[in-house]
Amino acid sequence: MASTPPKRLRDLGEDALISRILRGFPGGDSLTVGPGDDCAVVDPGKGRGPLRLLKTDAIVEGIHFLPETPSEKVGWKSVARVLSDFAAMGGKPEHLLVTIAIDQDRPVAWMDGLYRGIRKCLAKHGGILAGGETSRLPAGALISVAGEGSVERKHLTLRSTGQPGDIIAVTGRLGGSITGKHLSFTPRLAEAAWLVRHLRPSAMMDLSDGLAKDLPRLAAASGCSFQLDPAALPLTPGCTPQQALGDGEDYELFLTIPERHWKAASNNWPAAFPKLPLTPIGRLTDKSSRSTPLTGGWDHFNPSSH
Amino acid sequence: MASTPPKRLRDLGEDALISRILRGFPGGDSLTVGPGDDCAVVDPGKGRGPLRLLKTDAIVEGIHFLPETPSEKVGWKSVARVLSDFAAMGGKPEHLLVTIAIDQDRPVAWMDGLYRGIRKCLAKHGGILAGGETSRLPAGALISVAGEGSVERKHLTLRSTGQPGDIIAVTGRLGGSITGKHLSFTPRLAEAAWLVRHLRPSAMMDLSDGLAKDLPRLAAASGCSFQLDPAALPLTPGCTPQQALGDGEDYELFLTIPERHWKAASNNWPAAFPKLPLTPIGRLTDKSSRSTPLTGGWDHFNPSSH
Repeated sequence: MASTPPKRLRDLGEDALISRILRGFPGGDSLTVGPGDDCAVVDPGKGRGPLRLLKTDAIVEGIHFLPETPSEKVGWKSVARVLSDFAAMGGKPEHLLVTIAIDQDRPVAWMDGLYRGIRKCLAKHGGILAGGETSRLPAGALISVAGEGSVERKHLTLRSTGQPGDIIAVTGRLGGSITGKHLSFTPRLAEAAWLVRHLRPSAMMDLSDGLAKDLPRLAAASGCSFQLDPAALPLTPGCTPQQALGDGEDYELFLTIPERHWKAASNNWPAAFPKLPLTPIGRLTDKSSRSTPLTGGWDHFNPSSH
Repeated sequence: MASTPPKRLRDLGEDALISRILRGFPGGDSLTVGPGDDCAVVDPGKGRGPLRLLKTDAIVEGIHFLPETPSEKVGWKSVARVLSDFAAMGGKPEHLLVTIAIDQDRPVAWMDGLYRGIRKCLAKHGGILAGGETSRLPAGALISVAGEGSVERKHLTLRSTGQPGDIIAVTGRLGGSITGKHLSFTPRLAEAAWLVRHLRPSAMMDLSDGLAKDLPRLAAASGCSFQLDPAALPLTPGCTPQQALGDGEDYELFLTIPERHWKAASNNWPAAFPKLPLTPIGRLTDKSSRSTPLTGGWDHFNPSSH
């Protein structure tokens, strides 16, 4: 007996929706990595020179920020999220385009603050604002940031290339981002640049939907299962392991490292980034083994699963 | 006595808003053309090889399409608008990213139709779907398409390089797009490729907000005034000259051509595009002269001026 097909996006959930969309992507010769990783990857030099990264990301009032959030913080967050995705591939930002869709009764000062936040983030972390667009939205606000970055060919780090036995590690502390970090986080570009040079991770991504969602995604993309030690999680002070797993919006790097690379170089991390922990929290395992059960994490189309 | 500063986006209007935003753009060495043209232009080869075009564009339910619009047409329109911008620079599309922000009660079939329209347009006109993102919107739908294209250096055609005396011409017929063309138009990529090779326009853009808005923009960017002959406008059957000027969403090319280029090559247009008129409608003039007064055209933040 056939099951009833899903009817609405909330029934389908985000991962199933993306899988459904991806089925129809034709791809192309110039596309080294298509949809499904933090960024798409284009090879403009046909085997030589740096690769180009492409990314688009949107934040929505009422979901990613509140009507009362200072617009400068909204601007910072809108571009920092995209910079975090370039970091997650081992790369850096080049040119960004910003699309604002917004109600026409919005104070002009709100827009001024938004762009102030955008400019501050780019001035601090790199990337050139190359253009954009404004459109009216019947109510509320949406900021969509698209950008291109670049990555040295040897530093490109995907989420699909982890191997069984690799150590799983995260930068920073997890959980409780909603109290403020989600609006003012540091995109881990400098940290990623160090990691791809010294620790040479086998796979990497940024933590946006929470480790409980993002770890199974990386493991699945790499064809692995995983063992996670909840007691090893680096917690934001005041947070529980479940909050660290499920709150989301940490914007920390989450990576897998071959054990020999970990042994050779992880001791050098504290000298490079004395204020930021790099914490081993588990291992990728053979896909025939059972993964540590995780619950929580953010699903854009089924928030009740949160 | 100082005037009262504008307070809300609807008071400011779209052009003033964009000018305000642009003041804070720092630019960068790699950016050949920054905000203000149909696309931003990047020079990856530092003086050699093709240039890269960057563009982002969004369409919003209730503004650019209706809740009852078939989603396949929405998908077509969302990418065709960006392809039209690449055409307006004399270029072609390469890689596109699609961001969907949408309510979670939307039928999955709506999303399937949207991507069917996107794929059809790209299959017909070129461009590779490289990635994207989905996010929840409290209500309604927004589709933001960002993309990169390329243009041969000698074919790059800006909106700021028209000269007094140049002939103003448009492709196709203007007005009445709302009855259907705005959802199914042909991005003029093939036509633009012919024009930059044979007619060598001094300036070009695509007509999205109506000639009454877009002609003054091109003239201002080129430091010119203009004379327009309303009786010469190529009208969609059933439309008045005022509709042709003000309806918007024509997505035709609008270009200025040095008179010697026009005399040398415009006769060859009908053989290349037998079904599509190319119509001279006026001339750029010295900026000290008075432009033909025009009313109408689309302002995103002040629709009452429409």
